[in-house]
Amino acid sequence: MNNKNNTLELDQILEDAQSTKEQLRSSSKKQKDKALEQAAESIDSNRRILKLANNEDMEHASTLNLQDSFIDRLKLDDKRIDSMISGLKKVIDLNDPVGETTKKSKSPSGFLVSKMRVPLGVIGIIYESRPNVTADASALCLKSGNACILRGGSEASKTNKEIEKCMIDGLISADLPEKAIQLLKNQDRALVNQLIKSEDKVDLIIPRGGKSLIKVIADDSKVPVLKHYEGLCHVFIDDNADLKKALDISLNAKVYRYGICGAMETLLVSKEVAGEFLPKMEKSFQKHGVELRGCLETSKIIKVKDAKEDDWKTEYLEPILSIKIVDGIDEAIRHINTYGSGHTDCIVTEDIKAKNNFLSNIDSSSVMHNLPTCYADGFEYGLGAEVGISTDKLHARGPVGLEGLTSQKFIVEGSGQLRE
Amino acid sequence: MNNKNNTLELDQILEDAQSTKEQLRSSSKKQKDKALEQAAESIDSNRRILKLANNEDMEHASTLNLQDSFIDRLKLDDKRIDSMISGLKKVIDLNDPVGETTKKSKSPSGFLVSKMRVPLGVIGIIYESRPNVTADASALCLKSGNACILRGGSEASKTNKEIEKCMIDGLISADLPEKAIQLLKNQDRALVNQLIKSEDKVDLIIPRGGKSLIKVIADDSKVPVLKHYEGLCHVFIDDNADLKKALDISLNAKVYRYGICGAMETLLVSKEVAGEFLPKMEKSFQKHGVELRGCLETSKIIKVKDAKEDDWKTEYLEPILSIKIVDGIDEAIRHINTYGSGHTDCIVTEDIKAKNNFLSNIDSSSVMHNLPTCYADGFEYGLGAEVGISTDKLHARGPVGLEGLTSQKFIVEGSGQLRE
Repeated sequence: MNNKNNTLELDQILEDAQSTKEQLRSSSKKQKDKALEQAAESIDSNRRILKLANNEDMEHASTLNLQDSFIDRLKLDDKRIDSMISGLKKVIDLNDPVGETTKKSKSPSGFLVSKMRVPLGVIGIIYESRPNVTADASALCLKSGNACILRGGSEASKTNKEIEKCMIDGLISADLPEKAIQLLKNQDRALVNQLIKSEDKVDLIIPRGGKSLIKVIADDSKVPVLKHYEGLCHVFIDDNADLKKALDISLNAKVYRYGICGAMETLLVSKEVAGEFLPKMEKSFQKHGVELRGCLETSKIIKVKDAKEDDWKTEYLEPILSIKIVDGIDEAIRHINTYGSGHTDCIVTEDIKAKNNFLSNIDSSSVMHNLPTCYADGFEYGLGAEVGISTDKLHARGPVGLEGLTSQKFIVEGSGQLRE
Repeated sequence: MNNKNNTLELDQILEDAQSTKEQLRSSSKKQKDKALEQAAESIDSNRRILKLANNEDMEHASTLNLQDSFIDRLKLDDKRIDSMISGLKKVIDLNDPVGETTKKSKSPSGFLVSKMRVPLGVIGIIYESRPNVTADASALCLKSGNACILRGGSEASKTNKEIEKCMIDGLISADLPEKAIQLLKNQDRALVNQLIKSEDKVDLIIPRGGKSLIKVIADDSKVPVLKHYEGLCHVFIDDNADLKKALDISLNAKVYRYGICGAMETLLVSKEVAGEFLPKMEKSFQKHGVELRGCLETSKIIKVKDAKEDDWKTEYLEPILSIKIVDGIDEAIRHINTYGSGHTDCIVTEDIKAKNNFLSNIDSSSVMHNLPTCYADGFEYGLGAEVGISTDKLHARGPVGLEGLTSQKFIVEGSGQLRE
């Protein structure tokens, strides 16, 4: 179904991206930061143009039958422009990972072996309505020495084009190749399909958006995909929990924001403390209007809707919480490793043995102790800006910083040793 | 085409593998080493049975129309049994990567963040005739805390079954779950297809064998694949090379072994030194009977067959070498990044600037200075036993040791901080 001219168009974009690799790989931190500085300035001085383009996108979107939340994400006002600019400044503050070299070790045959961090090459970003991704994602790719090909949602196409221009202003001002950041302007879906099948020309695909977008891309891609499926996060209240802490942590984990991947979806409570803990948590969760669904044992202590098998498997992203009373830590670990999504899970306890057991045996990208799961975030972890949170186990797991956009090669320095 | 009973059979194997994860994750180095020790003993004391089974496989193979090299790889004699045993001992000598924790850093909000190395979970190994892989690969999976599902070639099935029994002896003696190492006995190819599509039950697929096997698996797999495609390795003789070293290194890179992935396939020579270097190298390569194919410029200096465009793209794995005279280091780098396979490439030079330029700008998993490319090997690098050499950029690149079979999770330790 692919139109031949469109195919050729993407071929050219891929070739242009390839042609920038050499220069990007050897560009200095100073040069890359200068480009980001100028891009931020261009965004600032082109506010009027950005907002005009966004108005056109918004007007067009209003004629389609779209959800309010979708339209809201599309909107670019001064506050969001400010935050896009401060996002670029944050990337400037990050260390340049390219060229970092590990300590040299001597091989059995006497030569020296180390590893050097290098860019991946070309990264494809596929995203939905938020236009700020055009700036955020291209800045992270540039800082890590990668060329990027951006494919935003069609509903934001005018806004994205103007943001791309500002990013290119930055590249030009720093003598970096213009084609290091390329927005795919042709919205033919067949081009997305071609992009994710170009494993010889693209090194990584990052889809940013809902689970269904990610699933479709991951299923069809021949290029490796940095995936973020879902965050079905648990908080487990252990026998030896400080119940005041348990109350604060579980409430914060749920109500800090319902829609984020680090929000708690299931609360596990050890039967030893359920009788004392549940009535208290019921009260504070009710104040926030959170709907409680519980197992049979829970329903004997507090008023809950019946939790069904499906509740243990559901990332609500809403003011709904499922509650299960467990026999103790072993059942909690088993429940989390069975039903969880391997994102972020927490134990609340004052018992070091229970803490260590939980930290070792939960198979999730972040395992927490006495901390609400909503803290799962690269910036909170001190990684600086975040590319995303990976639910994969390979390459990058959990919050991904700039390092996730790089690779390491072996540097092997000899003095004429020969192999016999 | 999948037979329903076979599907159910693999379902059971996958479930059994899953059921061992918890125990494997928390097993100690001592326990794992004890299992490997006992497996080595079982192999040693069952030599007669192993060789009998292998005889049956060999006899059956001889009735098929197979290449001699294939039959040779299938053979298991005392020497190869010895080397299988010493391979297990090498794995015992390796450090246990599981549980290694990075330094804790303080997050902006005051909690502690570190990373802990953990097993991937379940690894599928798909290999061809060499029966030693049954012991090698399962030992590496066990040492890194992973369950494995082994799918060897049908021609080695009797031998593989006997080796599996020895490995299971080891597991039993160390109180580890028997199902941690499972050989797929049903040779229905549909099961391989089912295995590589079980992304919920299998964490990594490692194909070991020829390029075509790897390609078929990589194309169809939904599970991440650790790939090793090809080694089209280059040696570049720079203007400022020590020509004696250059001669030794290039000869060793080619003739150490023609069939390994680290063998040099293309020699690049700077035009400054070509007149002096090529006649010397011609002589020594001729002594080894290496066929030389050269570019037009080369043919003006020494006697060569004409190299065609295809020669720059060919991993010969034979006593054939293509030679190209280049203008200097920039052309050499461009040639390697264009035609190379990103495996291992070397510069011979005494000039530090040229060396650093080459080491930084060659986009290969190993970049060498004054060292023959045939040194590309995990054991030579000091990594201990090697799972394979990855030509991928993500997760593991270059020679892969035990770490490549693990992942890192974030450990986040709070004291009741709340997010506002």
